[in-house]
Amino acid sequence: MGASAARKLWDRVTVFDGSRTWPEAMALVTGGERIERLVRVAELGPDERASCELMAGGGVITPGLVDCHTHLVFAGQRAAEFEQRLKGVSYAAIAAAGGGILSTVRATRAASEDELVEQTRPRLEALIADGVTTVEIKSGYGLSQNDELKMLRAARRLGAELPVRVLTTFLGAHALPPEFVGRPDAYIDEICKRMLPAVAEAGLADAVDVFCEHIAFTPAQCERVFEAATRLGLPVKIHAEQLSNQHGSALAARFGALSADHLEWLDEAGVAAMAEAGMVATLLPGAFLTLKETRLPPIQALRDAGVPMAVASDGNPGSSPMFQLTLMLNLACTLFGLTPTEALQGITRNAARALGLQGQAGELAEGRQADFCLWRIENPVELAYAVQSGRLRQRVVAGRITHGAPESGVSP
Amino acid sequence: MGASAARKLWDRVTVFDGSRTWPEAMALVTGGERIERLVRVAELGPDERASCELMAGGGVITPGLVDCHTHLVFAGQRAAEFEQRLKGVSYAAIAAAGGGILSTVRATRAASEDELVEQTRPRLEALIADGVTTVEIKSGYGLSQNDELKMLRAARRLGAELPVRVLTTFLGAHALPPEFVGRPDAYIDEICKRMLPAVAEAGLADAVDVFCEHIAFTPAQCERVFEAATRLGLPVKIHAEQLSNQHGSALAARFGALSADHLEWLDEAGVAAMAEAGMVATLLPGAFLTLKETRLPPIQALRDAGVPMAVASDGNPGSSPMFQLTLMLNLACTLFGLTPTEALQGITRNAARALGLQGQAGELAEGRQADFCLWRIENPVELAYAVQSGRLRQRVVAGRITHGAPESGVSP
Repeated sequence: MGASAARKLWDRVTVFDGSRTWPEAMALVTGGERIERLVRVAELGPDERASCELMAGGGVITPGLVDCHTHLVFAGQRAAEFEQRLKGVSYAAIAAAGGGILSTVRATRAASEDELVEQTRPRLEALIADGVTTVEIKSGYGLSQNDELKMLRAARRLGAELPVRVLTTFLGAHALPPEFVGRPDAYIDEICKRMLPAVAEAGLADAVDVFCEHIAFTPAQCERVFEAATRLGLPVKIHAEQLSNQHGSALAARFGALSADHLEWLDEAGVAAMAEAGMVATLLPGAFLTLKETRLPPIQALRDAGVPMAVASDGNPGSSPMFQLTLMLNLACTLFGLTPTEALQGITRNAARALGLQGQAGELAEGRQADFCLWRIENPVELAYAVQSGRLRQRVVAGRITHGAPESGVSP
Repeated sequence: MGASAARKLWDRVTVFDGSRTWPEAMALVTGGERIERLVRVAELGPDERASCELMAGGGVITPGLVDCHTHLVFAGQRAAEFEQRLKGVSYAAIAAAGGGILSTVRATRAASEDELVEQTRPRLEALIADGVTTVEIKSGYGLSQNDELKMLRAARRLGAELPVRVLTTFLGAHALPPEFVGRPDAYIDEICKRMLPAVAEAGLADAVDVFCEHIAFTPAQCERVFEAATRLGLPVKIHAEQLSNQHGSALAARFGALSADHLEWLDEAGVAAMAEAGMVATLLPGAFLTLKETRLPPIQALRDAGVPMAVASDGNPGSSPMFQLTLMLNLACTLFGLTPTEALQGITRNAARALGLQGQAGELAEGRQADFCLWRIENPVELAYAVQSGRLRQRVVAGRITHGAPESGVSP
């Protein structure tokens, strides 16, 4: 039995398993890439304990964190625009001067795939250092077949190079590219007839997303993208009800979407449709904060309807330049009123479900892949309560410690 | 000449000097603990360059960051209370059950000085990892002579053990201790006649602070503390106008206070008094966010009056459990409408001024102590724009690299 298959023990830990915090001190044993045992400390016999290599004693273990909504791959940045807005320059004036999302599109189109990988790596490393082991990355700044494929390849390469699972989402319907100004339906044609089939054939997307909003695409246009994705066997999701109620969530529900994301303007019918379809509601407090939104997503209605809530960074160069998932825990509580446990479920179990990974990520249980984090805290709630770096003691991916070291000094 | 006195060169850097970003690529040369040269790259002659050891090429240099308002020393934490509030338990019910600030007082009193040092160290290390080189730490959870002295000694010890300058502030008038319930003036007597003289005699405080608020102490009570501090030769500052307008800032101005902090309810007369007295306005967006405040500090009035604005973390276990100063840059811009340059001045030059350290910290200039940070960004504005760890390449304190390494591969 090789070293990687040896049994390893994390002893006397407090465990949040993706759903709840276990009341007793627990022992977690891995065998190779999997969690072999997750038991109360008292139930781990002396022989079993003796057969394990001790990795750590004490602390809190959570599933590896899952960031289920990011736009991490892009070139350039928009700090100058951030500064202009704070000096009083209007969005319209910035857009007229070539700013906004289209400035990111220009920079992303001009960048090579290698450059995209290099520029994105520090952002992904920041998420990894924060405990993320699974991350979704969308395209949507290429807006042409070649540039969208380039973004998706860059995302996949990062997943191969760094110790993190990357899921890719094709978001061609993110904004109208300059070549199609005044002809949005022609761009939707381009997406459905050329881009999507090419993405599917290359096997570069795990899902398909659309931005349904008065500043982006209409429900009818989004529906056409969903039909094309469905024909190709790709699951769908949606940016919906962020700035207005377009009933995008209910539209997505008809296609069995994985999730609807943002949702500040979601109404009761939308909540009901999402519940019926078993969709996840992904909340994005970083964009809410950055855009100084005031209308809250309907948290209590989502709770009452049993819609699982995820929380994500939305990391992107414009509306949420925030690449720190644990900060979103705090913001989801403070801004949206989630309980710390709901917020923690939102970046573990429910985030995995928003990616179609239920049972494969975001939960700790015997037999599951051993992706988890060991934290220098006493109670998982502290992750939501305090914003503080340096608390990640160990990050474990498929049973291998990728951050921190076994703590040889720990008492058995 | 020893190694520490050798001349070291940071070449082709963009420099924010505490006030402004220089438009040209700069060279920064240290000699021992001091900045020897800060010049345009073109003005550094080949002989001078050859006499230096190259530490890095490219990137942004800022002064070492200054966090001028923290309550970093405390025992325990209040995550459970954070959770209760989000589940709908009222502040009053939490306080009646022994929660709130008095729970931190109990834990801090029960802790030894060693325990306070150990519990505080990770929070201070988090600030250091974020680029902080100077930090103010207040007492105020002991509320008895021995426990306040213990807190101040713990803060001073941390400054001796870690590569950071710690300034201590005596905040005996933070809350009414249980022993004095119903007798606030008797506690003020205790502060003025026993605690403050003992603190001054021990040389443990660089300044004296008070919490002037309807839930804390009246202006008349604060005035007595200021009188006692002034007699002892200690500079004063104030928590003022956070939840209501008590005219505390104007009171503090009469005593030539260093700063007034929070200031959401500051009125025009208060702004004028602060300007006249040359005080700093310290803004605390973490507490504003955590307490879900809605009334903004009068930023434009402060600007118009020429009152320097500082920005600080207010790191504490209740109203701002946020130990990340660069996050405050982003929040000061997004929540309060500061420009990125104002926010950067707020955690460098103006924060130093709020501590009485003008000319000694928070600014880069020839002859000054070489406390600075080298960042993996292109423009200082990015520090306010994006929330992202891992951007600190090097942290230099008194000419010595305390984080990161010289980059031997850099081209000369």
